[in-house]
Amino acid sequence: MPFAVFILGNNSAIPAHGRHPTSQVVQIHEQQFLVDCGEGTQMQLAKYKIRKNKFDHIFISHLHGDHYFGLIGLITSYHLLRRDKPLHVYGPKGLLEIINLQLSVSNTTLYYELIFHEVKSESVNVLFETDEYIISSFPVKHRILTHGFLFKEKRELRKINPDKIDQLNFPFQIIAELKKGNDCEWEGKLLKSNEWTLLPAKPRSYAFCADTIYHEELKNFIAGCDMIYHEATFMEESAERAVLTFHSTARQAATMGKLVGVKKLLIGHFSAKYENLQPLLSEAKEIFSDTELAIEGTQFAL
Amino acid sequence: MPFAVFILGNNSAIPAHGRHPTSQVVQIHEQQFLVDCGEGTQMQLAKYKIRKNKFDHIFISHLHGDHYFGLIGLITSYHLLRRDKPLHVYGPKGLLEIINLQLSVSNTTLYYELIFHEVKSESVNVLFETDEYIISSFPVKHRILTHGFLFKEKRELRKINPDKIDQLNFPFQIIAELKKGNDCEWEGKLLKSNEWTLLPAKPRSYAFCADTIYHEELKNFIAGCDMIYHEATFMEESAERAVLTFHSTARQAATMGKLVGVKKLLIGHFSAKYENLQPLLSEAKEIFSDTELAIEGTQFAL
Repeated sequence: MPFAVFILGNNSAIPAHGRHPTSQVVQIHEQQFLVDCGEGTQMQLAKYKIRKNKFDHIFISHLHGDHYFGLIGLITSYHLLRRDKPLHVYGPKGLLEIINLQLSVSNTTLYYELIFHEVKSESVNVLFETDEYIISSFPVKHRILTHGFLFKEKRELRKINPDKIDQLNFPFQIIAELKKGNDCEWEGKLLKSNEWTLLPAKPRSYAFCADTIYHEELKNFIAGCDMIYHEATFMEESAERAVLTFHSTARQAATMGKLVGVKKLLIGHFSAKYENLQPLLSEAKEIFSDTELAIEGTQFAL
Repeated sequence: MPFAVFILGNNSAIPAHGRHPTSQVVQIHEQQFLVDCGEGTQMQLAKYKIRKNKFDHIFISHLHGDHYFGLIGLITSYHLLRRDKPLHVYGPKGLLEIINLQLSVSNTTLYYELIFHEVKSESVNVLFETDEYIISSFPVKHRILTHGFLFKEKRELRKINPDKIDQLNFPFQIIAELKKGNDCEWEGKLLKSNEWTLLPAKPRSYAFCADTIYHEELKNFIAGCDMIYHEATFMEESAERAVLTFHSTARQAATMGKLVGVKKLLIGHFSAKYENLQPLLSEAKEIFSDTELAIEGTQFAL
């Protein structure tokens, strides 16, 4: 089942060097989710031929403009395109008020239902859940209330051992128990779960850590993640500025990647002062070699 | 002295076919003005290497998103770039409230002064004036309160006749009177203005007619214009839809160009349904041959 992240924007506050503000598409199984929606996101979707109507859930990490100024344009385009299915938007208090004000000055009543979910507290919140995966928010540390988002597959049932499939003439209930890992009796014979079934694939998880100052407690929320996106606005030479602005350096992002033991670390939210991003990548790789730049138009599969 | 219009965006509500929502730069003499500011305008400015810090005055025609969703991004970028000169924004009631709400949720106090000028009534208002030119708003007819903007050079003083320049040994006050067109007496001699001075260049004018349904009264506000931009959202085959949405067809835009007797008509605000714009141009040219498509990245000089 696919599980991948596609980068639409990777720059910090001021668009520069052809780079756009933050936005990512997270595809998990059959569903696509939009994470943050900086100015121009709908044009970036068009550029990369991603159908915008696929999104039913949009997650906004915080209310700095480079993370949400493109949302109202997308909401309006959905309206003009006569969208009729509901749209769920998850974000901090204040976002709905902004949307409603902008709709009211243009006398717009949306054709579709916009369901706003306020990401309220600073603790972990389950935002959306299916049988297959769960999406939750976790707090990070920034100048204003900001959340990261964790996309996590659920543990699947054990799979039938393909070598045994021809002998599988038991009732459905017995098979279900074996898939759950339980041994069963059937017609006086003990059926061992670990003979008839195999371990399922390990559930995968991805964490988008939003804009954040480096802080070790973050690892508690993203422990065991296969891939994380951690901002790297600055290089270590600007570490002081990173602290002042509640951002991180490439070295700090890599330190978090190493601490969590992820398979892959994506860094992004690059300051406009860096035209060439290779020095940020090099700085991170010195600490954690499995780092990649979150280059726009690139997909990273888990 | 330069007087020209540069197109940053020419599409109607939904960005499509690589076209962007409405925004234009009007350069008049030494000053550049921004007219409308759809989503992505700051990226378009960067793309065409137009320094955004040159603008001190931004005019917003109305509060449909494709004409102003890019404004808050530009305002925020100015802040992040530590702009220190005032910015004047002219637009309908409601715009300032939206800006202030978006600044407040991010705890932002701008480094510079943002001076908002509400374009209040539907009559003609002088918005900005220098010795050389005057910028005013005029009403158009759209679904919500909408204004066009007229950029008009003032009549200059007459110019000293270069053939006479060596004999020009009169006091400054006499010369000033002659330049105003007044005959003068000096040492018992009659000095005729039309001998000592020549007619100045005819003042030029450009009208941005915003989003509007076709209505003949518009000509009263833009009479004598050298160049106008008139929207042409649809072709004549969709004339009914144009009326319903308070937009115009290419044929109607051309009819207005002909009625006013402009030297050049620019058409824009094209519906996303038209990938190829040539049919719109052909339709307009059948009525008024001096029509041009407002193609993004193109400059039109007066």
